[in-house]
Amino acid sequence: MPSYKVPLREYRFLLKDVLDIGRYSNLPSFADAPMDLIDQVLDEGAKFCEGVLAPLNRVGDEHGCVRHDDGSVTTPPGFKDAYKQYIEAGWSGLSSDPAFGGQGLPYIVALAWNEMVASSNMAFGMYPGLSHGAYAAIHTHGDDAQKRTYLPKLVSGEWTGTMNLTEPHCGTDLSLLRTKAIPQADGSYRITGQKIFISAGEHDFAPNIVHLVLARIEGAPAGTKGISLFIVPKVLVNADGSLGERNGVVCGKIEEKMGIHGNSTCVLNYDDAVGYLIGQENKGLMAMFVMMNVARLGVGLQGLAQSEVAYQNAVIYAKDRLQMRSLTGAKNPGGPADPIIVHPDVRRMLMDAKAFNEGARAFAFWTALYVDLLRGSPDEKARQKADDYVALVTPVIKSYFTDKGYANATNCQQVFGGHGYIEEHGMSQFVRDARIAQIYEGANGIQALDLVGRKLGANGGRAIFAFFNELDDFVSAHEDEAELKEFTAALAGVKAQLQEGTMWLMQNGMTNFDNAGAASHDYLNLFGLAALTYMWTLQAKAALAAKKNGGASDPYYGAKLTTGRYFLARMLPDAGAHLAKLKSGAEPVMALAAEAF
Amino acid sequence: MPSYKVPLREYRFLLKDVLDIGRYSNLPSFADAPMDLIDQVLDEGAKFCEGVLAPLNRVGDEHGCVRHDDGSVTTPPGFKDAYKQYIEAGWSGLSSDPAFGGQGLPYIVALAWNEMVASSNMAFGMYPGLSHGAYAAIHTHGDDAQKRTYLPKLVSGEWTGTMNLTEPHCGTDLSLLRTKAIPQADGSYRITGQKIFISAGEHDFAPNIVHLVLARIEGAPAGTKGISLFIVPKVLVNADGSLGERNGVVCGKIEEKMGIHGNSTCVLNYDDAVGYLIGQENKGLMAMFVMMNVARLGVGLQGLAQSEVAYQNAVIYAKDRLQMRSLTGAKNPGGPADPIIVHPDVRRMLMDAKAFNEGARAFAFWTALYVDLLRGSPDEKARQKADDYVALVTPVIKSYFTDKGYANATNCQQVFGGHGYIEEHGMSQFVRDARIAQIYEGANGIQALDLVGRKLGANGGRAIFAFFNELDDFVSAHEDEAELKEFTAALAGVKAQLQEGTMWLMQNGMTNFDNAGAASHDYLNLFGLAALTYMWTLQAKAALAAKKNGGASDPYYGAKLTTGRYFLARMLPDAGAHLAKLKSGAEPVMALAAEAF
Repeated sequence: MPSYKVPLREYRFLLKDVLDIGRYSNLPSFADAPMDLIDQVLDEGAKFCEGVLAPLNRVGDEHGCVRHDDGSVTTPPGFKDAYKQYIEAGWSGLSSDPAFGGQGLPYIVALAWNEMVASSNMAFGMYPGLSHGAYAAIHTHGDDAQKRTYLPKLVSGEWTGTMNLTEPHCGTDLSLLRTKAIPQADGSYRITGQKIFISAGEHDFAPNIVHLVLARIEGAPAGTKGISLFIVPKVLVNADGSLGERNGVVCGKIEEKMGIHGNSTCVLNYDDAVGYLIGQENKGLMAMFVMMNVARLGVGLQGLAQSEVAYQNAVIYAKDRLQMRSLTGAKNPGGPADPIIVHPDVRRMLMDAKAFNEGARAFAFWTALYVDLLRGSPDEKARQKADDYVALVTPVIKSYFTDKGYANATNCQQVFGGHGYIEEHGMSQFVRDARIAQIYEGANGIQALDLVGRKLGANGGRAIFAFFNELDDFVSAHEDEAELKEFTAALAGVKAQLQEGTMWLMQNGMTNFDNAGAASHDYLNLFGLAALTYMWTLQAKAALAAKKNGGASDPYYGAKLTTGRYFLARMLPDAGAHLAKLKSGAEPVMALAAEAF
Repeated sequence: MPSYKVPLREYRFLLKDVLDIGRYSNLPSFADAPMDLIDQVLDEGAKFCEGVLAPLNRVGDEHGCVRHDDGSVTTPPGFKDAYKQYIEAGWSGLSSDPAFGGQGLPYIVALAWNEMVASSNMAFGMYPGLSHGAYAAIHTHGDDAQKRTYLPKLVSGEWTGTMNLTEPHCGTDLSLLRTKAIPQADGSYRITGQKIFISAGEHDFAPNIVHLVLARIEGAPAGTKGISLFIVPKVLVNADGSLGERNGVVCGKIEEKMGIHGNSTCVLNYDDAVGYLIGQENKGLMAMFVMMNVARLGVGLQGLAQSEVAYQNAVIYAKDRLQMRSLTGAKNPGGPADPIIVHPDVRRMLMDAKAFNEGARAFAFWTALYVDLLRGSPDEKARQKADDYVALVTPVIKSYFTDKGYANATNCQQVFGGHGYIEEHGMSQFVRDARIAQIYEGANGIQALDLVGRKLGANGGRAIFAFFNELDDFVSAHEDEAELKEFTAALAGVKAQLQEGTMWLMQNGMTNFDNAGAASHDYLNLFGLAALTYMWTLQAKAALAAKKNGGASDPYYGAKLTTGRYFLARMLPDAGAHLAKLKSGAEPVMALAAEAF
């Protein structure tokens, strides 16, 4: 059975030493959450994840969800009870608005919590994860009555939520959406159509499910300009808040998937279901994007989370499994062979994962802090910068983290040899679960296009130029620090490469949009490498400072520096390859006639 | 249901235009196989694969193999009948020795056949594939009686074979092997022990299975020097060749795996089973390597095969699926959206697969021709060169092809978006099946170590220096050909990089073996890129010649050049990153204390 320990020390190093969140006690969410409270929340969260959620991960994979003839769905054994414990302990509303029963903790704390949940049991975590998406959309776009009716139940977890976008003939391209909404005299609508790939679409956790559904109001314009967003509760809610009649939405099928078997991925059939418009008519896509952006950070985190848990298990195996002697002489002479962690190529795979995990986690936390600033800073300029940064890096986190998460899970499975390919060790599940994160919430290619097509040029490139200035300023400010030099030099180098790629895009992407499309994947990866170099530089700085301030005898800080150096030597060299590829332009990619494929 | 068409035109282009196999009619296998016969074999093979094997691929994945209480195993519906057709049509002994009923066709033809079988139904193809390994070991090391008893049945496919190496506590490190063999008065042995991960270990295809089993004769030295190889038939064979008593070997379990569900991966329990020594006492590992080397080329081919079939299905989907408009204006203005093949990032994934597939296939065929020369050339120097080359590139083909095969299958699954994640389109299966090829027959890290630790330095580096000379000579001979210049220039460049990497290894790998181990993965990948650059240069040369010789109006040759250019622009840049990583040495990889992981 796979194992998982929440990397609490990493969380604390980031929160205290790297990001120094104590600085932000002027923000309302931080004011009510001193570090000792956050510590307590993280400790409790770790207990819950390790004790309740992680042990159910293999169970979920093996049993999956079962749909019955009446459309009801039974989740895997133990899931329903775990969900009950989950909401009773208050995990559902961790960073939600206190006005609706939430705990109002900083988003950065919720992010740490989301990572541990996704490492423990990704399929389970998707149920409350989707609820949070529905919460965000209603919180931003709902009217007061809608907020009063739905938010307290979503925050408490008494009800769950879903996002309904995809139809059989359209996923990425929502302009083709066909589900229709017919206005009723009472101001409500009747919704009819079929939605597919609806995560957490039906289950036995809760008496009601709040579906958020994109549909086209009869007579609305074609394309994306005629799409509206509706609340369609599984069970209608009476005026007094009690549950009324069953609504016309039913689970028609559970998909057979490669992974995340513990989550019910449903075909939902809407047949004259009662729905309530949320936000403005024909502005549904905008409202949906509120959910999507939060969700995309969460999906990026799933990539990191699978990489982390796969790494932890590979480390245990690599220390335990005895095969062959070290190339430089026996390291375990008393045993029949050496533990495979002595072999350089096994270490390569472990270090790849470790250096990614710690760099990526820093980048996620760094971004989460900007989400908190965006939500709570009294300074308008600070909010604008935060907004710019979060928008800019969201597609990078979603795509880079999930591609690497899958690659690392695969490498960690490789450490197990043949034992990794059989299901009982759980390594196959980490790979199969990680795979979906590259696909859903906007496939990774769409993220790359979002980055180069929308985010980069927004407001005259304000966000990316601010990022470049920040890197320049950091390098200038620390140029004289000899101990940090290897990091700042690498940072200056990759910043120059990213800038070169950006300039190439600005010069060539506008004259031929296919240049932008063809460059997008490599540009996004180059961005990811630059961002992680920055994060490793910040971590190295914090580790060096901690060593000087009483931490000299703590091996943690030395290990941090060693891991950062691995990143520079062994992962950063890909930046040059990405730059060369993107600068080769659209021609090599587009030249072949479609018939010649 | 996934689709598959055998890439016959690719095979013919390689055999005729690139490798010009007509030159080799002096070899016995080629003398009896004029091109029109080979054409006919390929056509018939394609019919069989497309018509019989491919339609059973999903069936195999869905049903898997079932073990009954008596240890017998039922294969998926249709498999047994397909195997009957397979052997009746004579596919089993395609390149086997005519002295034992084989057809004696060139190995290069068998290689093409193996690719199509693995694309059609990898799990099925492993049954005859393992038989061929057993055939090779007995053909090389068996005595006359053993050859007479077993080879005709293995060649005809009436019986099948297996390879039994792995035990629960040892896979890579066979020195730890515990299965014991006790000598009997009649010259036979009694074998007792447990073997795991035995592909095709039990099934309902044939009345007998010839297990080749590594075991330690009582009193033999510890370590690898005390391992012997035994023939252990499932059913004992009487002196007259008829089947006698059931032997003491039984399938204890079928593993639950990530993929290749159609193949029965067995735990085999040997309890006092009668076995016959093959080859010399305590020289079993050497005998086993005869099987392993052939098997490793076959496994490399599985990587290519999964990449090819995944690519073909992704192309069909990309031409059919309508989502979004092209960035450069509608390409399908009459339809609701454009086919997704117009989008650069979709093309990137398809072109990555196509450029790999065609380059890798050329490399496999090029290598297969050396296998034929090794087996049949009358010229001792030619045989030596062939032996050197085959030994050198086998780990590259095994590891590079299977890593890329998995990556391409994953990318082709990505083309399907969410539809790729559900099982019904078959894309998940290609990924899950491809995954095992990176692990079995020596995990890819072991291949890399074999390359840098054994193959590179063998005979004073004779093989690698011959390869460098061949590349230099080719570049010199074609320097003045303007049309080929982009390819020859790239070839000269990557050859210089590979040489630099080789020199670094020679200078640093001997002083610290961990330098070799830490460099091995990147060196192998750099080798793969250099080899594929050579193959693309050879193909470009052949395509340019064909265009001049009456093929100007055939779009095939232009597409070949375009695909080669994609390889140069978009895949070859990784070479520099691999070189930089390998030259960073062991320090970044080995510096972290084991406790710090």
